[in-house]
Amino acid sequence: MNHASHWTADPIELLRVGEGFRLDEVDPGAHPGFDGGKAQGARALAAGIPKLADLQEQLFAGSRMGGDTRRILLVLQAMDTAGKGGIVKHVMGAVDPQGVQLAAFKKPTEEELAHDFLWRIRKEEPGPGMIGVFDRSHYEDVLIGRVRSLAPPAEIERRYDAINVFERELTAAGTTVIKVMLHISADEQKARLQERLDRPDKHWKFNPGDIDERLLGAKYREAYQAAFERTATPDAPWYVVPADRKWYARLVVQHLLIDALERMRLEWPKADFDVEEQKARLAAS
Amino acid sequence: MNHASHWTADPIELLRVGEGFRLDEVDPGAHPGFDGGKAQGARALAAGIPKLADLQEQLFAGSRMGGDTRRILLVLQAMDTAGKGGIVKHVMGAVDPQGVQLAAFKKPTEEELAHDFLWRIRKEEPGPGMIGVFDRSHYEDVLIGRVRSLAPPAEIERRYDAINVFERELTAAGTTVIKVMLHISADEQKARLQERLDRPDKHWKFNPGDIDERLLGAKYREAYQAAFERTATPDAPWYVVPADRKWYARLVVQHLLIDALERMRLEWPKADFDVEEQKARLAAS
Repeated sequence: MNHASHWTADPIELLRVGEGFRLDEVDPGAHPGFDGGKAQGARALAAGIPKLADLQEQLFAGSRMGGDTRRILLVLQAMDTAGKGGIVKHVMGAVDPQGVQLAAFKKPTEEELAHDFLWRIRKEEPGPGMIGVFDRSHYEDVLIGRVRSLAPPAEIERRYDAINVFERELTAAGTTVIKVMLHISADEQKARLQERLDRPDKHWKFNPGDIDERLLGAKYREAYQAAFERTATPDAPWYVVPADRKWYARLVVQHLLIDALERMRLEWPKADFDVEEQKARLAAS
Repeated sequence: MNHASHWTADPIELLRVGEGFRLDEVDPGAHPGFDGGKAQGARALAAGIPKLADLQEQLFAGSRMGGDTRRILLVLQAMDTAGKGGIVKHVMGAVDPQGVQLAAFKKPTEEELAHDFLWRIRKEEPGPGMIGVFDRSHYEDVLIGRVRSLAPPAEIERRYDAINVFERELTAAGTTVIKVMLHISADEQKARLQERLDRPDKHWKFNPGDIDERLLGAKYREAYQAAFERTATPDAPWYVVPADRKWYARLVVQHLLIDALERMRLEWPKADFDVEEQKARLAAS
């Protein structure tokens, strides 16, 4: 953490799920490590945009020449209205679309259900040089899967292990895995759903099922707690990001990406052709 | 064309390929319909960003609720360095990534070559509510395919017809098809290739094959001319956009998209649930 002086403490350390983590002890309205409000947060986000864009271009460049196969996978999980879409739009939207591989996982289709739960996930693994973003993910299969008993308990148990094996494969192949849960309070969620009902231009974002899910909030928090305990690993850590303040959650995710890219010590790839020879050819063309 | 007063004449009319069009009569350095320079062009592009983003959100919303299946397909074709990547970054980059489906078509794989040339293309058709962007496309199969004799002349002939049939299918299914050729001069291309060779941070964008292609420039222009004559249809028109000035080409493509979206007369979809009933449920939750 050295790229941004607006942090009073590194949110990566503050928000990473570690030993003894308890979701119910996290305040969704807090903004740990950032000593400012919405305006300062927006300025900090704007300042990070060219930095993230430059680093992303270097990551992409290395995959096109020089054979660097490293990549990033950002997993976004959250209850409805917590702001996944806003992260995609305001954090990822600042990056060259050519370098972003976005996959939104909805309710599985019949065909997907006829396969192992990781089948549809593996098809969306980001390629070399890409930043992959999962808007919901394989974690749904141990979240809604558990809360709504869509699979027997033994199968849910098996999935935690399968997820760890899968994520180890990813990291071994050069993928930096960053798992984010956006955490909002029941009150803030109510206010956001209310806005979707009050504004005709937001109706399309509302689904009656959102309230059914909301009523199961306590059970979802238990399922998240269990998922953290079983799948927070040093190589594929979880970050629980307070998300009642959208500006804070966006800033943290941008920071996580910038930090991951900086740790890669990216360099522009060396030409795999003779530059002088090509200059001569070009001059003669 | 009513959304932007900075045009002195509608570039859609000026740049659309019509009866008797001749590529060799187009000046790649011109900026038809725009009475200003780079700074004014950049301001106009910035002014269009929220407009395009809002329209795209409406298009997307209609597909999520209300069953509107309309969509857009933007086909980008050009010689190397003409600025396809810049269009993706600066025009499409301003749109919510969730609503953009980008497909870059490279040299076909063995598997792709074992199928009809449209096989890999059809797999990337944009879904309802999406703006699809093809960075290169099925037109490669009548461009490089013709210039380098990758297929017999009779097969190239067949492809023009197959393309027309394919694009009629797309438009019949509610896809607005916009085909753009970015047209740069040989001198401007030389300068851009020179920059890629001069700057180590641009080397990854250079490929010695780019000069081989450049040497075939006249043959490519003939192949484009033939493609325009065979595939410029009222429903799937071609636009040849002078692209020596990057700001102009970006502004035109943004304008084409805004215009296409405005013609759809999009509206926020009506709620497919009882809003008052859901408000009561939310209040009780």
